[in-house]
Parts: sequence; structure tokens; C-alpha cells
Amino acid sequence: MSVPTPTRDDQFSFGLWTVGYNGTDPFGGPTRHPLDVVHVVEKLDELGAYGLTFHDDDLFAFGSTDAERQTMIDRLKGALESTGIVVPMVTTNLFSAPVFKDGGFTSNDRAVRRFALRKVLRNIDLAAELGAKTFVMWGGREGSEYDAAKDIRSALERYREAVNLLGDYVTDKGYDIRFAIEPKPNEPRGDILLPTVGHALAFIDSLERPELVGVNPEVGHEQMAGLNFSAGIAQALYHGKLFHIDLNGQRGIKYDQDLVFGHGDLHNAFALVDLLEHGGPGGAPAYTGPRHFDYKPSRTEDETGVWDSAAANMRTYLLLKERAAAFRADPEVQEALTASKVFELGQPTLGEGEGHAELLADRTAFEDFDADAYLGGHGFGFVRLQQLATEHLLGARG
Amino acid sequence: MSVPTPTRDDQFSFGLWTVGYNGTDPFGGPTRHPLDVVHVVEKLDELGAYGLTFHDDDLFAFGSTDAERQTMIDRLKGALESTGIVVPMVTTNLFSAPVFKDGGFTSNDRAVRRFALRKVLRNIDLAAELGAKTFVMWGGREGSEYDAAKDIRSALERYREAVNLLGDYVTDKGYDIRFAIEPKPNEPRGDILLPTVGHALAFIDSLERPELVGVNPEVGHEQMAGLNFSAGIAQALYHGKLFHIDLNGQRGIKYDQDLVFGHGDLHNAFALVDLLEHGGPGGAPAYTGPRHFDYKPSRTEDETGVWDSAAANMRTYLLLKERAAAFRADPEVQEALTASKVFELGQPTLGEGEGHAELLADRTAFEDFDADAYLGGHGFGFVRLQQLATEHLLGARG
Amino acid sequence: MSVPTPTRDDQFSFGLWTVGYNGTDPFGGPTRHPLDVVHVVEKLDELGAYGLTFHDDDLFAFGSTDAERQTMIDRLKGALESTGIVVPMVTTNLFSAPVFKDGGFTSNDRAVRRFALRKVLRNIDLAAELGAKTFVMWGGREGSEYDAAKDIRSALERYREAVNLLGDYVTDKGYDIRFAIEPKPNEPRGDILLPTVGHALAFIDSLERPELVGVNPEVGHEQMAGLNFSAGIAQALYHGKLFHIDLNGQRGIKYDQDLVFGHGDLHNAFALVDLLEHGGPGGAPAYTGPRHFDYKPSRTEDETGVWDSAAANMRTYLLLKERAAAFRADPEVQEALTASKVFELGQPTLGEGEGHAELLADRTAFEDFDADAYLGGHGFGFVRLQQLATEHLLGARG
Amino acid sequence: MSVPTPTRDDQFSFGLWTVGYNGTDPFGGPTRHPLDVVHVVEKLDELGAYGLTFHDDDLFAFGSTDAERQTMIDRLKGALESTGIVVPMVTTNLFSAPVFKDGGFTSNDRAVRRFALRKVLRNIDLAAELGAKTFVMWGGREGSEYDAAKDIRSALERYREAVNLLGDYVTDKGYDIRFAIEPKPNEPRGDILLPTVGHALAFIDSLERPELVGVNPEVGHEQMAGLNFSAGIAQALYHGKLFHIDLNGQRGIKYDQDLVFGHGDLHNAFALVDLLEHGGPGGAPAYTGPRHFDYKPSRTEDETGVWDSAAANMRTYLLLKERAAAFRADPEVQEALTASKVFELGQPTLGEGEGHAELLADRTAFEDFDADAYLGGHGFGFVRLQQLATEHLLGARG
Repeated sequence: MSVPTPTRDDQFSFGLWTVGYNGTDPFGGPTRHPLDVVHVVEKLDELGAYGLTFHDDDLFAFGSTDAERQTMIDRLKGALESTGIVVPMVTTNLFSAPVFKDGGFTSNDRAVRRFALRKVLRNIDLAAELGAKTFVMWGGREGSEYDAAKDIRSALERYREAVNLLGDYVTDKGYDIRFAIEPKPNEPRGDILLPTVGHALAFIDSLERPELVGVNPEVGHEQMAGLNFSAGIAQALYHGKLFHIDLNGQRGIKYDQDLVFGHGDLHNAFALVDLLEHGGPGGAPAYTGPRHFDYKPSRTEDETGVWDSAAANMRTYLLLKERAAAFRADPEVQEALTASKVFELGQPTLGEGEGHAELLADRTAFEDFDADAYLGGHGFGFVRLQQLATEHLLGARG
Repeated sequence: MSVPTPTRDDQFSFGLWTVGYNGTDPFGGPTRHPLDVVHVVEKLDELGAYGLTFHDDDLFAFGSTDAERQTMIDRLKGALESTGIVVPMVTTNLFSAPVFKDGGFTSNDRAVRRFALRKVLRNIDLAAELGAKTFVMWGGREGSEYDAAKDIRSALERYREAVNLLGDYVTDKGYDIRFAIEPKPNEPRGDILLPTVGHALAFIDSLERPELVGVNPEVGHEQMAGLNFSAGIAQALYHGKLFHIDLNGQRGIKYDQDLVFGHGDLHNAFALVDLLEHGGPGGAPAYTGPRHFDYKPSRTEDETGVWDSAAANMRTYLLLKERAAAFRADPEVQEALTASKVFELGQPTLGEGEGHAELLADRTAFEDFDADAYLGGHGFGFVRLQQLATEHLLGARG
Repeated sequence: MSVPTPTRDDQFSFGLWTVGYNGTDPFGGPTRHPLDVVHVVEKLDELGAYGLTFHDDDLFAFGSTDAERQTMIDRLKGALESTGIVVPMVTTNLFSAPVFKDGGFTSNDRAVRRFALRKVLRNIDLAAELGAKTFVMWGGREGSEYDAAKDIRSALERYREAVNLLGDYVTDKGYDIRFAIEPKPNEPRGDILLPTVGHALAFIDSLERPELVGVNPEVGHEQMAGLNFSAGIAQALYHGKLFHIDLNGQRGIKYDQDLVFGHGDLHNAFALVDLLEHGGPGGAPAYTGPRHFDYKPSRTEDETGVWDSAAANMRTYLLLKERAAAFRADPEVQEALTASKVFELGQPTLGEGEGHAELLADRTAFEDFDADAYLGGHGFGFVRLQQLATEHLLGARG
Repeated sequence: MSVPTPTRDDQFSFGLWTVGYNGTDPFGGPTRHPLDVVHVVEKLDELGAYGLTFHDDDLFAFGSTDAERQTMIDRLKGALESTGIVVPMVTTNLFSAPVFKDGGFTSNDRAVRRFALRKVLRNIDLAAELGAKTFVMWGGREGSEYDAAKDIRSALERYREAVNLLGDYVTDKGYDIRFAIEPKPNEPRGDILLPTVGHALAFIDSLERPELVGVNPEVGHEQMAGLNFSAGIAQALYHGKLFHIDLNGQRGIKYDQDLVFGHGDLHNAFALVDLLEHGGPGGAPAYTGPRHFDYKPSRTEDETGVWDSAAANMRTYLLLKERAAAFRADPEVQEALTASKVFELGQPTLGEGEGHAELLADRTAFEDFDADAYLGGHGFGFVRLQQLATEHLLGARG
């Protein structure tokens, strides 16, 4: 078998901070020199990516003068023009500078909250200027280590106030931009506000313009809470809120690893690609936006390793896409899915026009139903199905 | 110091299955004999509880005849009458019998789903008859071990169909009952649908009668995902959805321990009681419903240990309530909260009538804001606050 | 590609309690009828296994009379004889009966400890009679939920006393049996004594006859503590203590799932098989004992699912063995391993006969060593290596 | 009640890197200015500490000239002399500089391993010069993210080679120094070699001079694997290997939090202090070395918060010591411990001179033993004991 090659149609995008990660971690400083943005754009183009994303502070350092800022924007624009790479998403850094040490939108310090809003408004203008359609908000510092230090309900109210204002802003300016909230359970804060996809979805429903706001789930973030990532994505899709996605790898509940996609939980990565690519009606893609990698090249690597790791993300995605297609096309799998009644879950439980009165009148549903037959019988065949998935994943049933 | 005594006004309630737990676990059978429901009601009354809750199958075994069922209901009613114990909440078991091995409302098997609905409708009638105001739904078997075995979006749609029907039912019957969904991330299924408070809240927003449905969070369930329980409760309160609560103890991310309340994460238990008792306006209780214990007396205990453990739940709650009151009343704590700007988070970020235009025009918010002063300055004093909380929790500042 | 078929030479063995698991879990009773031991032996033989293992209580219920016990032993012997299935390992149940609610060898109750020793001695005789070479000890109830309830040092001393006695017993009886301790961090106890492979290895070193005792690590048990299973196995091999192994699948830190091998962390399963099969000198197997599956067929399954799941364990193992062989044989992998200096770690750090004096005299080691060259240079190429492993695992480089 | 004041006799020590932590984390740079070592020593003295510990690179930056290094050493010595603060422990940084990106003693790169040994030998000389009795080795970079990248058995062999050399060195030089290995499961590496106290203890037994080497367990490190810290300390004590200890706080399985001692799992902190202070014969301290805090003042704090947090560690320790003393002195607790047979575990299971033959001959141990009486009887009373511990912890039974 051969490994597929990425093309622009695959819509692979990378954060500037991902390949640009210099190796700093809590126990060590940089192991790599900074990468120039023009070089990054050219290399991503060469590798088959279609998009670049960034935080303001990735492109021009926090505290840059207007001139320094503009120089970097112009350099980026030049590289985009010469390569055709696009900027599908932009985001703002409200977590690195000391001023954000207790968060941005929900810092206990009101002056910081106002500064954070201003920083985001400015970067939304840049996002619009570059044609980005999605503005991601990861509130990594919105949270606390200690319960008494943060009034969670006030924090939610301040977060809501902020997102409402941003919604007004893009509406009033006529920008074609939607927002995507990125949840995370912890790190760098002990506990982060909106810790999971679910909490973010619930929060969005409370906004003044909920239609403008969705989620940007990240593989590793949900897995840091021990949650099933593809199941979370399915719920986001169910609520019509999968506006963007961050792909990477995580090996269990521990610090945020940001490994290459597929270098973490491989079964769940397979299920995810299957869902994204074949989960829509008739097996169409359930999600048509960018496949965005938010990962870190390991600190052990030099620049060669950086580009190897960028390529690895795309190769693994494409391999899993092939495996998922073969899985869905396999008649034995189709038979097994039927035997496991997976499709039967798509049928309404109630009959056409049936309400509680009709259900109560149906003796086959209760009085004459043979519940005892499920002891020793009516096996679901789920293990067989999982083994078929495993063998397809291993490329053993191609 | 002395340990406080529970009274009926404290609204402590217990599940019949909690004190009635016989010690069975995945690696061993019962270590205790069954307890009779009348005896349970009398003992709870004696200990100072005010309420009993139950699943249908706790009171009368799955598959009971109508006569057997009625006998047990009558015995319960007699005990309630003679003691004054009330039934504030009822729930239905859709997880123990073999028929529910793939769940109830979201079993892949449509006949099972219909049977589950009938079982619940029947038990709602009983709940209404006993005057219960809350009907809890824990979907412990709604889930999967394997990604291919469960179409999550269909499962959510079937769950929604079920809850919509139940909402119609209580409305049409004129029952004064609200529903409370209890999330859990896993166990007994590998991954459970609606794994956290957040996911449940998001789901509720999609219902036809969302006003009838809230959440019943359980301490240990959120902590099994490494989430901060009191923060999750605060978000549920923020959305107006804390309809009921399950108190117990859990020591970290592992199997569901169901320890006595306070025998798990003591800091978070303190924060929770503080929130419930003093988190409302003016320090009023933020939640006024039953304080319901959903715990298991350890398998090592005999019946003496069962009642000791029931009492322990209430004693610890009351002790933490005292500690929280002293914490809030301590002038040094008030000063520290102010210094940490905890109250400042209650102030809107925007001024009265301020929109994005006004914010953009305010140079003090950005152009003249001194972000650098936060390096080495503007410390938040959170550790001092946590130490004050710790010393109050330890009873050292009484 | 095709899926390989197991043969007796593969040395696959199964616990009687694995395929015999009836589906009971903390939230539900049996979903399957009991399986007869003769039927189990015949089916395992048919599927290509070579061995059966069991706890005493799996074969004859706790509290059986001598006659009942003997009947079952004779039935087992008959089935072994007619099929050729062997019993490579036997173990004793010290965790299910109420008497063991606080453990066996380390129960706080001395009479229980003495009873536990007697139960084990009796079962060692049976193990010897059946030709088992390994006697496994899983102390699942040796532990505590509460810190004050168990004096850990006394518990270790009692455990040591017990294992010393057993060592004397097999020595005095001339039995060709070695012991293998199976660690687990928690469940069914809140914390279990000897929670990891490391703790068990350290304990073994304190015994009177350490040469008789090794470990029986289980995939899921180490992964329940977030530990890397194949790394733990490597340390057990390093100390010469991998006496037996339990293969299964676990999806992260949660309750003990006992999934089919390969249905959990697939990367780590691949690394494990690579280590077991190719980790010895010259690529020989590093472990030559039984490949024992200690898993549970999911509760959703009927008997068909039981045997499908048993077969799935073996198929996945053999597939991973093929993938590992191809990985090791791939010249690009060999080149990458060299580039990553994986083999260089096999070279002693010190030269022949070099001590601290010589090392201190070597200026190239320190004074003239260019540490700065590692910033931006000397990349290890680990991500490339992991991607090669991933592509082999996915069958994409066959 | 009042909060106790630390004195030198309490033997509280702090790492220079703890109070000196500048706030850098994976998502942000410093929030505090560097602290001068002389100032640190003076402040610690003022707060009641008795000791300072450090890594070489804490005192003088990696790559310092000999003169720069000596200047800093002299400044430290001056401060020690003028305050009386001692240096009970020294350690070497083999994890921050780029050269150690794949570890020190077990880097795949042999030249790095030799450099690491030299760096450590040099720092041992300094440790001896300053009178340190313990040399800690935390191998935070000894590990891997990917299974194929690290041959674990070679890594253990290289680690062993290194520690053997160091043992020769201190012996040959006549230094009165012992080594203490500090385990950690992960972070900054995906998996770290010697991940738990158990793995380190097992490794130590394989050394040439095992008597020179013990462990330095850290609260948070064991809790990051979900392990019970006080149980692990008890096993280290059992094997005579608790050479040093790192106290701090951790809230569950997540990134390494390094909170103030007691700001994490409070029950386990109580059990730990009880063990250290009252776990020896006759209630004497089971450990008499430094109570060393290895924590980080939260990134939200300024220098005031740094010293508040340093003081908080000591205050909480002393409060827990008071609580543990009261717990042990309470007659009801003593009665409950007896009822729970906690002391009975201290009795040998076998009688004086009893072997397997005598045990087999004792019919009361098996044939006449009433195992059935444990169903519904022989409750252990563990929940009552835990409630007594909880009430003492809460200061409610003073």
C-alpha cells in the first residue's frame, strides 16, 4: 500500500504557533530558533496545506508598535499572495502576557477585561481584512486554581457580555465572521471556565446572537477530561455548532501533549475521521470546513523534525480517511452494523403520529413484551463490530 | 467544638438504593442482607433525614406482578405516613435488567426503547401519586464501549424524542413534576451519552419543553472526568437548571466510589456547600431543594456501619455549612476577597450604555493602559485567599 | 491482506472467568447464562487456544463440599485430556466471598488471613496436580478506601509473611511452581496494596525467596494509573521478573474495562507485541510464556459474542505481531532508529574500564563539549520514527 | 483556635526554584522578576524555615563561567552564614538546557550522557562543600513520548551505570552524602522512566551500592498517577528508603500543579502528616529529615504572594500536625481503631514457630472456620473511622 499525498482540496491548515513552537515547556527553554512567517507559509504550501491560522502575538510580539505590527502583516500578505495559502481562521492571544495572568474576558480586574476586549476587536479587524471566516476564542486563562478566588457565575456573565459585544461588532461592521469557542478542562489554570464541548454549547445558548457562535473542539482537550472526542464532535454536529476543529494527539489524562494527529488514541481518531468524512447524509462529509492541526512538534526535534511532523499530521489523516472509506464499503461491516441494529437507532421510537396515549395502549410495548428473552439472548454483536473496525484500522481487510 | 445534629429543616434525603446497597461490586457478591423499606424509612427518620427517594426496582423487583408491586407501595406509604418522611424525588431503573444492556431510551433495539418509555411512564404516575416534585433520569446504560456501535446523533435524537414525550405526558396529566437529567462520563458504559453537566445543559436547550427539564449533578460523576464539581454547579445555577443534586464523595479519576459526602475532595465539598448555602443574593442559599445523598456504605460494613455512614453524610454537610458561614463572616476574608477583586468580577466590563464604539474611543482602555505593570505587580492574592479558606476548613479560625 | 489464524504454538490462554463472565457489573446483574467448563475447554480448543487458567471459585463455587469440588476437577481433567488443552497457570480467589471484604493475606482480621492462607495452600496443591507452572496472586481486596483504616506497613509485612510461607510450601513439597503477583491501583478497593508493577517488584525484593516470585502485569491495570504498559513490561523484563502476562484493552483512566486486546490503546499494544516478540537478543522473543487474555466479553453480548471476542483477542495479537515484524524488517525504519540514536543507548556511557577519575580527565566530555549546538541542532527525529510506526501499524507500509 | 508558628526545629526547607519561580508556564512567560538568592535566604529565615535547597542552574545560569559560578556560591555562603540557614539537600538540573532535550543519564546521545555525568559530579562536590547530606536526582527528561524512540531496558541500564558511578564517587571521596531518586509519571516527557515510588524502589535494588540510594517522593507526582501518596510513603518507609520528601499540593490527575501543601487532597495530606509525625514506634516520627516544600507560588501572585504562599505551606503542615496529634489522642478514635482491627494487622498471621504444616493441621483456621458469618456480620467500621478522621481534620473534635 502507499501513503496518500495531501492536496489543497483536503483543506489542511496549521497554526503559525504550531510549527513555530520553539520547544519551551514548564521545565525548559527553547530548543529551536524562531521561524519566519514567510518561510512557514512557503513550507506549508510545499507540503500540501491550504491554510495558515494565527494569534495576533504569533505574528507580531505583544507590545509591538503599529509600524512593527504592519510590517509583519505586510510580510504575511505577500507570502499568502505568492503561494495561494489562505487564512481561514484567526484568534487572539489573551493568555501569554502578564496582564492576562487571571484571564482576559473574565479577569477579576475590570481594566484587564476592557483591555482584552480592545485587543480582540483590533484583531477581528485584521481577521476580516485577511478574509478569515472563523474567529476562535480559547479562554485558557479564564479560570482559577482556587474555588474562592473566582465567582463562576459572574465569570460566565462577563464572558457572555464580552461575546455579546463581539457579536454586535461583527454584525455592525458587516463582517462575514463567526466565532468558535474552544473548551479545555485545565492547564494552564487549575480549572478552566467552559471546560468541555458540552459546557461551551450550553453557554452559547445563553447568548444574544447564538447563531454567530459555535465551538472549536480540540482532540486533546476533551481527552484530558477522559471524554470520547468523536462522541463530543457528534453532539456538536447534532446542535449545528461544529464551526471549526483542532486535530492533534493525546495519550490519556495528563498534561496537554499536542502530539501529531493519530499519535494518540488511534481508535478514536479513526472514528473521528469516519464521522467527519462519512457521517453526513448518504455518507457525505458531516463537516466541510478546514481540517486544522493544533499540535506541537516535539521539543526533541530540530527544524527537519518540524516539517516531518507537519507532514505526518496530513498523512495520517488521509490514511485514516482511506481506512474509513474501506470500512464503510465492506459488505461484512454493513451486515454487522445491521445485526448490531446501529441503523435501527435512526428509526423513531414512536410510530407516525403516536403519542403517550397510543403508546400506553400498545400491549406489545409492555404487557406482552418479553424482557426475559434478553438474558442469554438478543446479543448486540458489538465486539464483532469493533473487531471489524480494528482490522480495517490495521489495514488488514483492505 | 461540637458536631451539629440534622433536623428536618435541613432537607436531607437518601436514595433507598444507597443505604440499601448490599455490597455487590464487579469482584464480589453481597456482604449485607437486604433492608426492608419500612425499616429504612424509620431509621432515616430517627437520624434526622426528611426524605426518601427510589427507583421503581428498588422498591419492587423488576418483573414483579401488579399485586407484589402494590404491596410494596402500600408498605412504603404506611411508613411515610407514620414518620412524616416525604418522597421529594423518584427515578426509574433503565440499567439493571438484561433488557437494558444497551440502554433504555437510546438502545439500538427499538422494542427496548418502547418498553423503557412505558416503564418510565408508569413510574411517573407513581411519582405523582407520592407527591414527588422531581423525576430524575440517569441514563447510565445510554452509551457505548465502541465508537462504531452507537450513532451518537441518532442516540441524542431518540433521547430527545423520549424526553419530549415525557414532557407532554406530565403536562397533559397536569402533574407538578419537573425532570432532572443526571450526567456521568462512564461506567457502566465505556462512554455515556451526556457525559457532563455541560453536555446535559446543551441537550436540554434542544428540547420542546426545556423549562420542564434541568440537571441532577452528582459530585463523583463530574469528578470522574476531573472536573471541578462546584464550578459545574455554578454553571447549572447560572442557567437556572439546578433542579436537584446528588451529594457524595470521590477520590479522583477512577471507578465510581460513591463515598460519604466529604470523604472525597474536601476543598471542593467546602466550596460546594458555601455556594449552595451562601451563593444566592445577599448570602442566601443559591439552591433550596433537597440535599440528596447518593452514596454507598462501604462493602466492608455491616448494618451498624450503614447507619453510621448515613449519619456521617449529614454531619459533614452541617459542619461544612458552619465552616462556610464562619469563612464568609470573617472580616479578614472579606478584605482578602476585595483585595483579590473577587467582587469586581461582578461589575460589568462595559459602562452603562457603552457599546463597541464607546469602548474603542476610550484611550484608557488600550492606548494608555499600562499592561507592563502586571509584570511583578498587580498580584491577585489568590494563594492567601486559599490559605484563609483552608484554615477555616480546618476549623483553625473559628 | 488476510488475518492470521491462531495455533497452539502461539501459546494463547484464557481465564475460565473471562469467557465465563456472566455480565454482572456494579449497575446490573447477569445478561448471560453460566458456561460449563467442559464446553469452554472444547470451544477454546476449537478456536486455537492452548491453555485454560482459573481461580478455584471459577471451577467450583465457594463453599462447595469436597465431593462437589472433586466432581468439577474431574470434569475439567477429562476435557483437558480429550482436547490437549493445558493449564499453565492457576490462581485463588481471595476477593469475592464476604469473608474477604477487607482482603485475604492483609485483612485486618487475623482469622481471615489464616483462612486465606489455607485456601491458597489447597489450591496450590491443585495447581501442582494439574501441572501449572505459575501461580498468580491478584490481591484485589488487599487495600483500603480510607487512610486510617489500614496500616500499610503492617499490611506489607503480612503480605510478605504470606508469600514467604507459600515459598516454603512449594519448596518443601518440591512443586515446580513460581508465583506471579498481579498489581492494580484501585477497584474494587479505593487504593490497592502494590498498585503498580514497580511497587510489586520492590516488594518482591524484600522476600525470603525472591527467585520464586515475579509479576503478572495486566495491560488495563497499569493504564488505569496512566502508566505506559510496555514500558512497565520492559522494566519487569530488565529485573528478570516477567513470569506471566495478562493481555486486554483499556480506554484510559477509568473503571477496569477488560476489553479485548487491541480494543484499547493500539499504539501501546503494538509496542508491547513488538517488545514481547522481538525484544530479546537478535530480535528473539523477550518473553516465551503464555500469552494470557484476561478480558471480559462485553455485557451486551450473547454466547456468540463471547466466542467472537475470544477469537478477536488472538487475531489482533497475531496481526500486531505481523505489523511489528514488518516494522523491524523495514530498512527505512532501521535507518530512522539509527538516526534517532536508539541503538546508541545500548552503548555504555563510560568507556572500557573508565571510572570517575578518567571521566573527569576527559575534556571532550565537559570543558570542550559544545552544549550550545543542541539549540536548533541535533534533532532526534523521534516524530518521524513514530510516524513510521504509525504507518506500519495502519498496514500502510506492508 | 490559633495557627501555629514555624520554628527551625520543624526542619522546613524550600527549593530556591520554588519561591524563585517566575511564573513561566507552557502558555505564558514570566509574571515576576527574578529573586536574588541572598534575599531568598533572608526571607526564608524570617519566616521560620531552616533550610534552602537548589539545582546548580538555580544559583548560577547554565553556561556560567567559573568566576560567575563562584561569585554566586560565595554570595549564598555569606547569606547562610549570616542567617544560620542550612543546605540539607542539593540537586542538579539535567532537564532545562537544550542539550538535555532527550534526557541526561539516559539520553540516546552518548556524548550528552557523559556531559550529564560530569555536570552532576561537579555539583556533588558543591553539595559536599555546603554540607548537604542528600543529593536528589529527578530525571524529568529521562523518558519518551513514543514507544519506539526509547529502549527502556537500555535506558535502565544506563541509569544504573550512572548511579553506580556516582556511588563510587561519593565513596571514594569520603563524602557523607546519600542519593534520593524522585519519581514522576509524566511531564515534561510523555512517559518518564521510573514513573512511581515503586518503580524507583525496584530499580534501587538493582544497584551496586543500594544502601546509598533511596527515594524523594513528591506529593503531586504520585497523585498525577492517581496513587495514594501516604500509602506510597509507607511502602518507602517499609523498605527503609524514605531519604527525603517533597511536599506540595495537587488537585487530581492533570498537569503538575505544585500547589501549596494542603491546597490539594486534604485527607491524604492529613494521613501523610499523621504517618510522618506519629507513624514510628510508640507514635514517634517515622521520618526525621527535612520537611521540604517543592511547590510553585501561583503565576497570579506578585512577591507578596510568594512569601504568603511560602508561609502557607508551613502553617498548614503545623495545623495538620496538631490535628493528627488530637486524632491519635482521642479515646474514641483509639476505640474505633481497635474495633476496626487496625492494630490486629500488626499481629503475625502465623503463630510463634508455626509453619505450613502446623497451619494445615489447625482445623479452626479452615474446616471449622465460619466464613458465612461475614455476610451481614463482622463489619469493620471503617466508615465510622473515616468520619472520626474527617471531624478531627475539620477541627470539630479538638
